[in-house]
Amino acid sequence: MDIQNGVAVIGVGCTKFGDNFTMSYADMVIEATLQACQDAGIELKQVEAGWLGTAFPDSFGYEGRAGMSLVEPLGLRNIPVTRVANYCAAGMDAFRNACFSVLAGVYDIALAVGVEKMRDLAPRDSLIAQAVKTLHPTIGKGRTAPGIFALYANRYFREYGIDKSVLAKVAVKNHHNGSLNPRAHFQNEVTEEMVLKAPLVVDPLGLLDCCPTTDGAAAAIIAKPSIAKRIKSDLVFLRGIGLAVSGGDRQFFDPHLNFLGFESTARAAEQAYAMAGIKNPRKEIDFAEVHDCFTITEILNYEDLGFCKKGEGGQFIIEGVSRLDGDLPVNPSGGLKTNGHPIGATGVRQIYELTTQLRGKAGKRQVKKARVGLAHNLGGPGAVASVCILGI
Amino acid sequence: MDIQNGVAVIGVGCTKFGDNFTMSYADMVIEATLQACQDAGIELKQVEAGWLGTAFPDSFGYEGRAGMSLVEPLGLRNIPVTRVANYCAAGMDAFRNACFSVLAGVYDIALAVGVEKMRDLAPRDSLIAQAVKTLHPTIGKGRTAPGIFALYANRYFREYGIDKSVLAKVAVKNHHNGSLNPRAHFQNEVTEEMVLKAPLVVDPLGLLDCCPTTDGAAAAIIAKPSIAKRIKSDLVFLRGIGLAVSGGDRQFFDPHLNFLGFESTARAAEQAYAMAGIKNPRKEIDFAEVHDCFTITEILNYEDLGFCKKGEGGQFIIEGVSRLDGDLPVNPSGGLKTNGHPIGATGVRQIYELTTQLRGKAGKRQVKKARVGLAHNLGGPGAVASVCILGI
Repeated sequence: MDIQNGVAVIGVGCTKFGDNFTMSYADMVIEATLQACQDAGIELKQVEAGWLGTAFPDSFGYEGRAGMSLVEPLGLRNIPVTRVANYCAAGMDAFRNACFSVLAGVYDIALAVGVEKMRDLAPRDSLIAQAVKTLHPTIGKGRTAPGIFALYANRYFREYGIDKSVLAKVAVKNHHNGSLNPRAHFQNEVTEEMVLKAPLVVDPLGLLDCCPTTDGAAAAIIAKPSIAKRIKSDLVFLRGIGLAVSGGDRQFFDPHLNFLGFESTARAAEQAYAMAGIKNPRKEIDFAEVHDCFTITEILNYEDLGFCKKGEGGQFIIEGVSRLDGDLPVNPSGGLKTNGHPIGATGVRQIYELTTQLRGKAGKRQVKKARVGLAHNLGGPGAVASVCILGI
Repeated sequence: MDIQNGVAVIGVGCTKFGDNFTMSYADMVIEATLQACQDAGIELKQVEAGWLGTAFPDSFGYEGRAGMSLVEPLGLRNIPVTRVANYCAAGMDAFRNACFSVLAGVYDIALAVGVEKMRDLAPRDSLIAQAVKTLHPTIGKGRTAPGIFALYANRYFREYGIDKSVLAKVAVKNHHNGSLNPRAHFQNEVTEEMVLKAPLVVDPLGLLDCCPTTDGAAAAIIAKPSIAKRIKSDLVFLRGIGLAVSGGDRQFFDPHLNFLGFESTARAAEQAYAMAGIKNPRKEIDFAEVHDCFTITEILNYEDLGFCKKGEGGQFIIEGVSRLDGDLPVNPSGGLKTNGHPIGATGVRQIYELTTQLRGKAGKRQVKKARVGLAHNLGGPGAVASVCILGI
């Protein structure tokens, strides 16, 4: 189908990501949304419908279970609001469904908000703790997020001959970018030596190979282009969006799984590239925000998204292609590595970053010639991936 | 916007609702979906995208948290699947988002499944138990579902002079209809005397005024009409769909709340009627499946949906207008009262019922002259309502 110029992003907002102990879930929803309204130059009451992306309300305080958690803080009584959950792709999938409603011609102006409050509850109430207590016997056997991604790293090392020093370059790059981003959770630079000497979490992943646990919210306001043009001058358009859901735990029992990449990322990218008419992502994508939950993941993402061939992800970071001043900057925001990963918020934060970059308003972290940007989420791990392409 | 003839329902499926102890969540997803495929005359692999409505996976076994819970049982690897949560409107909102994607032209054939497994876990793990332990201090003070709806019943009695015997007529009607429905949880008739003598739950609501706790799943396959016409002959079309989200607990602290109806129902209906071009629902709606979680709710629904004026809901049931052989049959399936209310499943079960009735294939419970049907969900209570209108 042709979605070109069918949806315009007219406003974006984003809280500071971090230990937001002084802000509630509702406070973060309000801040991100009102920023987006101000950015769009509209009043909140002009929003006709909303989508709320929150992944795990039951683990982190019972907020975000339904559309009500967007409507109540904002006082938007009786508008339609859908809550979307899809693990780490919850925020981008909220944005995706909002886009469909505008493409369908049902609403002229819609809102997508992603939010997750992860820092308030004690670890015994955390997602992992609940999972260990109740289900997923594999989690009790080391199937934690770092545990799973460490398997991918070790397999990748053996297959393609890279080592921890290559992973460290991803952390160094993303910490550099994050140091230029006033909304990032961590805004410190790190050296390769610091990454390599950090405490080990799961071999070979050290503390600085992992993204932190974080609070945050982000919002995007989209509109039908004919309406958008009357409201805003520097419009950003949806070019393509894809979502692929594969198996969860069961995939790890699939004898064909090679632990060298995520099929869901490749399939979600295929969908988005087909919509956007992109044949050669390496040439046609100007920059990307990808799901670097761990340093190894960013390297796998390069390959799964078609930025380079299988096995060339190490070289891609070594050669500096994905640096802020490289040919295809990846995670100019600092990525999950330094922004953190408030699960439902991340996808919308990436939409915020893409929009800001495409408008040329990213300040010190501005990517040169940013005309087409890609955002990517991966969750499950591997159970779900989403890819969104925006352009000017 | 004009959605007329933009989406066709081509297949529906529904499990038996009840104590499905021999079926898992996944088993129910599979049964409902394969029934819908068979009904549509398509193969499962023709489904391009899915929406999964489950309200409370964390209370009832951790299934249904993400799109994966639809993809894994069905083996539909790498298609896009969004999980939607919206309290008791989760299933209908999944259907709504699926409709938008087809209206947008993004997919030709899409699937909406609603499912909830509520009978397997012991009460200490139930939603209410969790809520009491963790949040919502109001729940600890009697803010249970029967507690809230009893407030509405008592206020209604005082304002409009009806009594428990009028509520009992709703139970008698819906049990009669349920006795004709082979998928209903309860298929027994009840008398007014039985309802009035049933153990009291919260005054004035007795056991037979309340819908049961139930397992179940339902599925609907929708398609772009130009595609649908090649697949199926007796098409049912989407005429209008609305969703209204208001406040949750906080509404009970609103001094203007009169406990005589649900604003969210009225607003959702307004949206759906506007899309469908319906001016006089009493005349233009031929039959309805409404959210009779308690008998009082059905009476309030008559009024909130515009089937009669405020205060006339009692007369509506007394005069038999909503009986199967009445002028505007309500809950020909037996409603939530006898089907039960597996939360995420209910909205899609109602789509199943509307489609079956509109095709003239509802057997002993067939409504005469069924050309336009309405489905309605209410959750929260009052935090969310959805209304969907289908027609031939």
